Amino acid sequence: MADVGISVGLDVGGTKVLGVAFDADGRVVAEDRRPTPRGDGSLPKLIDTLADLADRLGPYDELGVGVPGLVTQTGVLRAAPNLDGVADFDVAGLLGARLGHRVRVDNDATCAAVAEWLHGAGQDASDMVLVTLGTGIGGGVIAGGRLVRGKHGFAGEYGHMVVDPDGPPCPCGRRGCWERYASGSGLARLAREAAVGGRVHRVLEIAGGDPEAVRGEMVMQAAREGDTDALAVIDEFGRWVALGLVNLTNTLDPERFVLGGGLAAGADLYLGPITTWIPELIYEPELRPLPEVRFARWSERAGAVGAALLHIVHG
Amino acid sequence: MADVGISVGLDVGGTKVLGVAFDADGRVVAEDRRPTPRGDGSLPKLIDTLADLADRLGPYDELGVGVPGLVTQTGVLRAAPNLDGVADFDVAGLLGARLGHRVRVDNDATCAAVAEWLHGAGQDASDMVLVTLGTGIGGGVIAGGRLVRGKHGFAGEYGHMVVDPDGPPCPCGRRGCWERYASGSGLARLAREAAVGGRVHRVLEIAGGDPEAVRGEMVMQAAREGDTDALAVIDEFGRWVALGLVNLTNTLDPERFVLGGGLAAGADLYLGPITTWIPELIYEPELRPLPEVRFARWSERAGAVGAALLHIVHG
Repeated sequence: MADVGISVGLDVGGTKVLGVAFDADGRVVAEDRRPTPRGDGSLPKLIDTLADLADRLGPYDELGVGVPGLVTQTGVLRAAPNLDGVADFDVAGLLGARLGHRVRVDNDATCAAVAEWLHGAGQDASDMVLVTLGTGIGGGVIAGGRLVRGKHGFAGEYGHMVVDPDGPPCPCGRRGCWERYASGSGLARLAREAAVGGRVHRVLEIAGGDPEAVRGEMVMQAAREGDTDALAVIDEFGRWVALGLVNLTNTLDPERFVLGGGLAAGADLYLGPITTWIPELIYEPELRPLPEVRFARWSERAGAVGAALLHIVHG
Repeated sequence: MADVGISVGLDVGGTKVLGVAFDADGRVVAEDRRPTPRGDGSLPKLIDTLADLADRLGPYDELGVGVPGLVTQTGVLRAAPNLDGVADFDVAGLLGARLGHRVRVDNDATCAAVAEWLHGAGQDASDMVLVTLGTGIGGGVIAGGRLVRGKHGFAGEYGHMVVDPDGPPCPCGRRGCWERYASGSGLARLAREAAVGGRVHRVLEIAGGDPEAVRGEMVMQAAREGDTDALAVIDEFGRWVALGLVNLTNTLDPERFVLGGGLAAGADLYLGPITTWIPELIYEPELRPLPEVRFARWSERAGAVGAALLHIVHG
């Protein structure tokens, strides 16, 4: 690491590719973005886009890319629901050949975990778990001062941890996955159920009277107005977030959780419920230090910053 | 490790303490046991028992102890439901002072994971998860070629992972913990429910007609006779085991699970259901190598053998 001057990180999202140049002092010294190519023939164009952004942000000593989906240890994107036509797309190989430079690739949420661990809310924690609460749930695990990648590179997919086998169907094809409850779409679903059940009048009013139009932000808005029905939905949401964090604590015993993703904007509303529910749900709460819960530092740049730092954590 | 000749491991169970001497070639060269002291004043007696066993199995270069309960990184047993009067019992400190030798201490299931990883069914796996299926569920995690201990030493307690928040109550005070379904007591509960529901006639017959007398072994016996009702209970049991293994796979992406504990004796009956259910429950089964499931090598000596090997895996 001492020899690295500038490292570039690129984060491929469903709508845009964000790139940053990161220096040895932990600062973003340049930033740029491009639309994510879509439709037929978009994959070669994506490599063009990545190469172009890397060139503009360089020269660099290290280059990393974060991508949404299952990524193998060698940087092949197996599948990505939000990118067109991806199947075994060798991002590391293709981009590396194009640029004549080693390219490290990992899942975007894993990159975010690396960013928060090395230069964010997870700093100085030997055992940290990042959970991104967005449309779904993503994650990355640091255990004993090392990134846990898993045998094939697929660790951290606990959004699909089953927390109720009879729960609502998940787009992944199964039922009751944690992200059906504890994500942005989970919050909206909990609120819609409350609306259909005749609760959350204020939320329904904001949604123009249509329960199907209820979204997570409307619950937040009503909760900020002090609406007790909306606060009850937030409490239920916090309980589901806590339940998954507790399952991860029983497995990994981290000292700290870092919560990121789009829902971090509502942190002030549900940090209280989450930290109240953890001791109610955890094994032997009186005999152990409870894990800290903090919100992410990097927000939308987390993936790109972490991609720039992959050279530190990949073996 | 090259300098270690004999290491001694002691495994404290609810009824007996088992000790082994382990040599550099991976063999148990001596074995001894004592009853676990019970009742008032049993803790000083337990230190006597451990010291006596260590002396008898020595001389040794390394000494380790496995204990049932939450163990801190420094070898203090915070709590142990199956030992009398334990609260912050400093096994490593007290036994170390008594013997004038460094003593390493860890949870008994963590020790079993170490035994299977270094000299058993988990050998050559960089990412392995041990699950002991007994009265409850215990565990230990190897990730990226290292033991995951957690910040406080409490990793691997996934028996208390909640898989159904409205499920049956657990002695831990919560509901729907994995071990309510996938342990020996879980199998018995599934069978009792089937018996009360008028299914599993043969199992009920073996139990003398009393649904409350149904135990896991009776289901196994009926299943071995080919009873289809009993086989259906085994299938349901296998689904619950698989569900927890899948949750752990989504989190840790291990290449291999090793199943140990008392229920390993019925391995031939439920290995089929478990491996059939895994692809039904896992995220993106068609895009990933599925984890292998093997049964443990060491059976009742796993804890003692792993305790003898703690010097290799503790930092």
